[in-house]
Formats: sequence, structure tokens, C-alpha cells
Amino acid sequence: MNLNDLLKHTSEWLKSTGPNSDIVMSSRVRLARNIDKLAFPSWANEKQSQKVLELVTEAVAKIDYFKNASLFKLAEVDSLDKQFLIERHLMSHEHAQKTDSKALVLEPEEIMSIMVNEEDHLRMQIMQSGLNLFEAWNIMSKIDDQLSDTLTFAFSQNWGYLTACPTNTGTGMRGSVMLHLPALVATRQINRVLQAVAKLSFTTRGLYGEGTQASGNFFQISNQISLGHSEEMIIENINGLIRQIIDQETQSRNALLTNNRAFLEDKVWRSYGTLENAYIINSEETIELLSMVRLGVDTGIIKNIDRCAVNELFILTQPAHLQKMVGKKISSEERDVKRAEIIREKLKIKQ
Amino acid sequence: MNLNDLLKHTSEWLKSTGPNSDIVMSSRVRLARNIDKLAFPSWANEKQSQKVLELVTEAVAKIDYFKNASLFKLAEVDSLDKQFLIERHLMSHEHAQKTDSKALVLEPEEIMSIMVNEEDHLRMQIMQSGLNLFEAWNIMSKIDDQLSDTLTFAFSQNWGYLTACPTNTGTGMRGSVMLHLPALVATRQINRVLQAVAKLSFTTRGLYGEGTQASGNFFQISNQISLGHSEEMIIENINGLIRQIIDQETQSRNALLTNNRAFLEDKVWRSYGTLENAYIINSEETIELLSMVRLGVDTGIIKNIDRCAVNELFILTQPAHLQKMVGKKISSEERDVKRAEIIREKLKIKQ
Repeated sequence: MNLNDLLKHTSEWLKSTGPNSDIVMSSRVRLARNIDKLAFPSWANEKQSQKVLELVTEAVAKIDYFKNASLFKLAEVDSLDKQFLIERHLMSHEHAQKTDSKALVLEPEEIMSIMVNEEDHLRMQIMQSGLNLFEAWNIMSKIDDQLSDTLTFAFSQNWGYLTACPTNTGTGMRGSVMLHLPALVATRQINRVLQAVAKLSFTTRGLYGEGTQASGNFFQISNQISLGHSEEMIIENINGLIRQIIDQETQSRNALLTNNRAFLEDKVWRSYGTLENAYIINSEETIELLSMVRLGVDTGIIKNIDRCAVNELFILTQPAHLQKMVGKKISSEERDVKRAEIIREKLKIKQ
Repeated sequence: MNLNDLLKHTSEWLKSTGPNSDIVMSSRVRLARNIDKLAFPSWANEKQSQKVLELVTEAVAKIDYFKNASLFKLAEVDSLDKQFLIERHLMSHEHAQKTDSKALVLEPEEIMSIMVNEEDHLRMQIMQSGLNLFEAWNIMSKIDDQLSDTLTFAFSQNWGYLTACPTNTGTGMRGSVMLHLPALVATRQINRVLQAVAKLSFTTRGLYGEGTQASGNFFQISNQISLGHSEEMIIENINGLIRQIIDQETQSRNALLTNNRAFLEDKVWRSYGTLENAYIINSEETIELLSMVRLGVDTGIIKNIDRCAVNELFILTQPAHLQKMVGKKISSEERDVKRAEIIREKLKIKQ
């Protein structure tokens, strides 16, 4: 697999095929694992890190799920491609730094990826479309079991799986759900919702993960606590919380449609009109307008545009993606022109 | 002729058929005349004003040009229709006040109208599409001559035609041209141009006449001095000035197209996209966006939209017009919805 191939297809989790895809963009389960008796990446010397990479490479090779997967050594991946992988939510910003013995295992559907030698030896993630944490966990759990056949993970009877950062110790698992909540934002109920989320010890992040602000009305909610509960119980908890938020967003959308339909139609169609006609557009404006178009599709105001096309545009309009499409590095001004071009092309209403 | 009939057709001066219609919306010649030995309207008693109305009615009836014209007694015209006539540039705001013996003579093409008992006994105007002051004056001059066959106008050998306000004395004529100068505004040269206009003793007004601000990049330029020169000379002067402004606007447009084409296309198409997709839109935004669409049509950025349709929308989207179309008085909020509907309908690009 060549990284350029990724440009030619749509990540599985963007396809809008999962449950509650009108409100939930995607579900993600992440598992942190470390190989017993080898130092965590931050403490490891080069030899130890190379050993980790070697062991993971061998273990992955034995698993059928990874038969079409590729392992990319990040030292050999250029900076544009690294940014491209981050934009596709396949790896973290941290993973792009000091890349000596870091690697990324990736299968072509982009459902599964493994960061090798990030904060932990293995950071595995499963992405699913819509609210589908259980399915994500099912896949993850099987792969975790299969990897355990080859690798001996650092595990304590008292603490569970050991991780570089104690907040991940225990299950080593984090479940997170990317929610699109434009109606809760528009009706100014979002702060109340997020406060409740925080009180229940869940974390809220923006569209682009840790350290990012909410933009485009996207909120990524994940568990903070990975200790003291089973994986299924943690997922059950997140799932229950997300279902409540979905209900509230649905109610807010219905209220907007009932009480402020003209206002909503106006906002949705203006956003569409700008996206479909702009020749220069920056990222921030794109995200905000796409958010409104997505709401338009979700509420039936806009027909004949696939939600998948809208989801995809959130990814495609990012800087590294635009540059990969052009085939070279281009300036911010040139990207604003290319971004507008891609949007006009992809957002046409089917007649 | 019924006032509602006006809604069904396009005023001749909006049709964009005249010279320099890409920059000049319309040309107007106005003539002030008073009947000898009858007090000016502000000083006249009811009997005298009625006499004026009677004399004008008789005089008009004798002129072939007015064979399809109608005379509307303003006391019998409701407030919505009066506003409608003002919006069509057929009469002044002042003419809608204290309507006792006021009237409006109007022929169906809306080229000529006569306000009876406004500030002067007769305020006659000829409207033409594009830069066409000479043609406007030709028509006006003939009608003035024909009216003089029946009516004796107040005239002094020293001062020329006498008028209620001394600034109109002499020829009683005012020529004015409505210019669309978006490129001079965008390139920030407009103030320099308007200062030069003022120094040459011309007056600049907005889209909706005396006392209105420039909006939608429209500037109405007219002569201040009507004394001491022949009508032809006054028109020659305005015409020369307008030609210079046209040259400057053309140069600015070419500069924008050469140096900032992407910026211009973006601004034009975004404006189109908003107008074509909005469901709620107020007057101010409409005018600004229509101005950009007009520039798009004028510069060839937008094809397959008639400039006439854009010109017409400046008129049709005004409050009284929207209410006439709906057939009743509606609130400002309802007008914003109706306005958006009319725009979406009229601004479709022909395939």
C-alpha cells in the first residue's frame, strides 16, 4: 500500500453507514499496550525501541486481519505525509515528532491503525462510522487477543495493563465518540451539556483531537477513567451518555425545525450557497459552513447530497490533503483557492 | 392604466439597453415649471392648486405623447401605492406628503412622469437606460414646447424660468446619472472621484435620491447649477464628467480583473451564492450583494444572467413592491422571506 492510495478512497468511518450517523460522525476505541520488560518509549534507548518495532512487526505479520496492512517507518515518511496521516485521524501529532524508531501500521480501510513507539509501545485504534463503540471494541478485543499470542504485554495483577502515563493504566482503553451538535450550539444548551459531561468524568475535545477547540460544532467525548471497570462497562457508560446527548440534540433539531424553520433553512442554504460558489476559502470558514450543510442534510432540508460527501470534505479540505492532491507544497493562499475548487466539485447537488 | 399593471412590466430605464449600461444604470432629466400668475404650491391656497391641476390636466390631454398616460390624484392613492411609486423612482418622498391637490401623470413605459403641485407646479422627468442624457433632453424639450402651447409658464427675461426654490431658477433643469462604481469603491478611489465631482459643483446622492446614502456602490450625480447656461451646455457638462468617471471605473475594473481576478470572482460568486440560496434577507444586504452580482455580469464573470434582471431586482425587492406582489401589507420579517423568494426565482442562471 502506498500512502497516495489513501487519497483515492474514502475512510470507512466517514461513510456514514453506522448507527445514528446523522449526529454521530464516528466512534473510536483506542488501546494502549506495552511489551513486558522493555522500557516505555520515553525511557527506552534506541536499541530497545528498535526491539519493540521488530517484535510488533513480527506479531502483526502473523495476524490475518493485517494481511493487506502496511507498516510505515516514520523516519522514512516525509513531513507532508505525516501531516496527511494526522489529518486522516490515523495518528497523533506527537507521533510525528522525533520519529527515530516510530512506525505506523495501517490497513487500507483505515479501520485499524497502530502507532508503534508513541507514548506507549503500541497505541492501537479502531474507527467506526456512527455510534458503534461495541463493534469497535469487538474488533479491537480480537486483535488484542491475537497480538497477545505473540507479545507479552506488561500487566500487573493489581493495576491491569501498565502504561507510560498512569491515566491510561488498567484497561489501557479509551473510547471516544465524535458528535455533531449544531442544534445544541444554536439553542445555547451546549454548555449545560458539556458541564454535565465533565461532571461525569468524561473529556470533551474538538474535531482534531487533544488540545483542539470545538469547531464546526463537533465534540469528541471520551472516558477519562480506564481503571477499575471492565472494558465493556466503560463502553456501556460512554454509550449511555452519548445516547442521552443524541436525544437532546434530536430534540433541539426538532425544536429548530418546528419553531425556526425559515431561520434554519436560511442558514443552511446560505452556507451551501457560499461553499458552492466561493473561489477562495480558509479552513475555519469551511468547517463552520460544512457543519451547517451537514445539518441541512441531516434534517432533510438539503436533499440529494450524500452525508458521506460532506464528511469527506472535512478531511479533504485540510492543508496536507490539499497539497497531496496538488502533488506539491503550496502556500496558504494557494490552498484557499484549491480548497474552494475541491468543495465546488464535491458538493454539487445531484439532479 | 392601473398602478398594479406597473408590476407586470419592466420600466424602460431598467432594461439596460442604453449606452454604457455596464456602468450607468440610468439617466434622468428633470424640468421644473410653474404656471404664470398662480402662487407656487407652498404659498397657494386650495383653489389655486386645484386650478393648477385643472390646467395641467387639460394641457396634457392635448399632447399625443400622453395618449396612453394616466393622471393619478394622490389624495385617492393609498399609502402603499404612493410608496410603490416612490420606489419606482416615479415621484419624490415629498410628493407623498399633504396630497390634497397633488397628482402624478404617468405613461406606461415609465419614461415620463409629471408631479403636479410638488415644490413647483410641474416637475417633469424623463428616465432613460444607460448614459443617454441628450435623448432624455430631446424628449423633454419637445414635451416642454408642447405644454407651452397651452400653458403660460412663469418666466423672467433676466432669470429665466421661475421656480419655488431659487436653486432651480433659470433653465429649471436638472440632469442626473445613476452610476454603478463598485471597482472605484473596491480600489478606494471613490472619495477622490467624489471630491472632484463636488469641486466641479455637481451633487452626489445615493440610490434612492435626495438625502439617501450611497448603497450598493450606486452614485447619482447631478448638476447643482441650472442658471447661466443653456440646457444643452449643462447636459454637455454632466456628460463630459460622467464619461471621465466611466473611464476611471473601467480602468479600475480592468485592474481588478488583471491583478485580483480570484479575489473578484470569489466576491462575485459568493454574493450570487448567498442571493440564490438565502431564505431570509434584508434590503441592505440585498443591495450590497446585487451590486456584486451586477459587477459579475458586467465583467463577464457571471454569464447567462441578464443585467436587466439584476437591475429589476434593485426595484422589486423594496418594501412596497414586495407588499404589492403579496397583495397586502406584511411585516418586515415577512418581507425578508418574500424578498429572498423573489430573488431566488429571478436570479436563476439560464442553462
